[in-house]
Amino acid sequence: MTDMKNDLLLRALLRQPTERTPVWMMRQAGRYLPEYRATRAKAGSFLAMCMNPEYACEVTIQPLDRYPLDAAILFSDILTIPHAMDLDLTFEAGEGPRIGKPVRSAADVDRLFVPDPARELKYVVDAVALIRRELAGRVPLIGFAGSPWTVGTYMVEGGGSKNFAHIKGMMYDAPDTLHRMLDIVTRATTAYLNAQIEAGAQAVMVFDTWGGALSPRRYLEFSLDYMARIVDGLIREREGRRVPVILFTKGGGEWLDHMAETGCDALGVDWTMDLADARTLTGGRVALQGNLDPCVLYASPEVIRDEVGRVLASFGHGHGHVFNLGHGIHPDIDPGRVSAMLAAVHELSPQYHR
Amino acid sequence: MTDMKNDLLLRALLRQPTERTPVWMMRQAGRYLPEYRATRAKAGSFLAMCMNPEYACEVTIQPLDRYPLDAAILFSDILTIPHAMDLDLTFEAGEGPRIGKPVRSAADVDRLFVPDPARELKYVVDAVALIRRELAGRVPLIGFAGSPWTVGTYMVEGGGSKNFAHIKGMMYDAPDTLHRMLDIVTRATTAYLNAQIEAGAQAVMVFDTWGGALSPRRYLEFSLDYMARIVDGLIREREGRRVPVILFTKGGGEWLDHMAETGCDALGVDWTMDLADARTLTGGRVALQGNLDPCVLYASPEVIRDEVGRVLASFGHGHGHVFNLGHGIHPDIDPGRVSAMLAAVHELSPQYHR
Repeated sequence: MTDMKNDLLLRALLRQPTERTPVWMMRQAGRYLPEYRATRAKAGSFLAMCMNPEYACEVTIQPLDRYPLDAAILFSDILTIPHAMDLDLTFEAGEGPRIGKPVRSAADVDRLFVPDPARELKYVVDAVALIRRELAGRVPLIGFAGSPWTVGTYMVEGGGSKNFAHIKGMMYDAPDTLHRMLDIVTRATTAYLNAQIEAGAQAVMVFDTWGGALSPRRYLEFSLDYMARIVDGLIREREGRRVPVILFTKGGGEWLDHMAETGCDALGVDWTMDLADARTLTGGRVALQGNLDPCVLYASPEVIRDEVGRVLASFGHGHGHVFNLGHGIHPDIDPGRVSAMLAAVHELSPQYHR
Repeated sequence: MTDMKNDLLLRALLRQPTERTPVWMMRQAGRYLPEYRATRAKAGSFLAMCMNPEYACEVTIQPLDRYPLDAAILFSDILTIPHAMDLDLTFEAGEGPRIGKPVRSAADVDRLFVPDPARELKYVVDAVALIRRELAGRVPLIGFAGSPWTVGTYMVEGGGSKNFAHIKGMMYDAPDTLHRMLDIVTRATTAYLNAQIEAGAQAVMVFDTWGGALSPRRYLEFSLDYMARIVDGLIREREGRRVPVILFTKGGGEWLDHMAETGCDALGVDWTMDLADARTLTGGRVALQGNLDPCVLYASPEVIRDEVGRVLASFGHGHGHVFNLGHGIHPDIDPGRVSAMLAAVHELSPQYHR
């Protein structure tokens, strides 16, 4: 770790002392940035940009050149795994992802396989290695994957969904089939994240965007159990340093206590729960990451500063807080507002670390 | 109340003894029923069906003729109030509602007015009176409205929304303007619900579909406070009987405690929280309504029976439970599955009332 110029994120994720609260943003490389849109235009499509390590590296680093962020996060997509499984992934402009060969039956599950990260997902591994090289120790690099349940919703529904009719139908009527599918996705995801770690990712995050659509019992059985298996299977030390694991279930505030039991290092929290309550629920077992409402970035710089102050005050004194939005940044945010947010974190957070 | 043949719902909402758990479904009059689709075809459009008391009465009663339900709920829409405010409401097929004149500025709020239920909303009042007459005491009739925050999201966004960019921008940058708008919607909603009660609604429900998109502090300030004002302003006794008020915030499980403080009689609970926990949180102050995942109705009758049993067991022994889905029934549900659900409630609930 001799080359790390800024390791605030890694220390905060391990609840070690930091001088201020580190900050990054979910989807910090994204459509709100004109330079991102320019790269995407060059690449021709979203998927082409994901699959080309040079483009992925370029957009990963763009927000760092513009803003004083404390982490880079790999530019990729949670659907690289079904893509590697040959399920015919496409992204229609303005339509979201489509899976041309959805998994609807036991026979469909029989045909699934665990992709080899060194083959079908080589472009991601190469991107991680390239980004890590290009970063040259400026900030740590976060790798990521979707949770098996969340990736599974796209695999079964054939795309985004409001009601999750197909996968919930399978969950209720053919739970064994769904468990078999989630087991395969879990093994694929574990290998995929380990390949990212071996290529240079210094922390990893599992995004469970749709776990909040489940009842408590089904959440534990169909989402959290699989995330726990991933946590168990990950490389946890690399380059002489612990590789922190962050779990994030959007809408999962009520379940933070269970999530903290998985052995992960940190939990993402959306904006529907106060960090003070999240801290009480998790009892200092994990670091917390969040949780500004992304819509605050539609407001004026003065309001943004106030709201950043509120989030910092809600976590309160002590270490183990990584400032973030409670969900990805919206594509129509004015990039200037991000500067206001970051300035406020820099200005207002040191008092909580004395 | 001499003409009430089945008042299970009203007793359960007031936590009085019942022989079994009463049951109804949000959106029980809806697209999943072929007879509803036939009436809609006759009416020509969704809005025309809402605005014609005979059609509204017809579809309100259709599910009661098919199923042994314990309540009727007025067929209408939460956007009747912006429609009455002349904001150019339309429903495009498959597109959801559109508000042609969205409320985006202080000047837009200045032009808003409180509709007179006897004039601009006479069609709803007439529908309530007609339905009540046609029901002839079979089951109680529930009236309803959207919460001011939820109705406000459509008024400001100009339709449905994923991110609530406009209304949250207003909330953060011009909170006084938003408060002024919500105050007008609150007065309109209170008058509207009281007109429904005077026309014969025997219980009323306030649907806060989008309160769960707010942070805890903003939820209290911009959604719950206005629902509390509505509760305060409602006629609570009529025909010698209390008129119960039900509040429902989708995704609001964490806030049930605060909701129970409003003076309402019952709270709707979605499926992301166990009723046992909801009961602990609310400490017997209110009845609870819910909370089967609507997707359970995609499953087989055997699974439906098991899941109904789980919901009943989670509430446990004692009175004050109204069985319902945790959200509206999905339009593609097989009507036969509803029968399985109702049979299970009838079969499995009496044991909890002994």
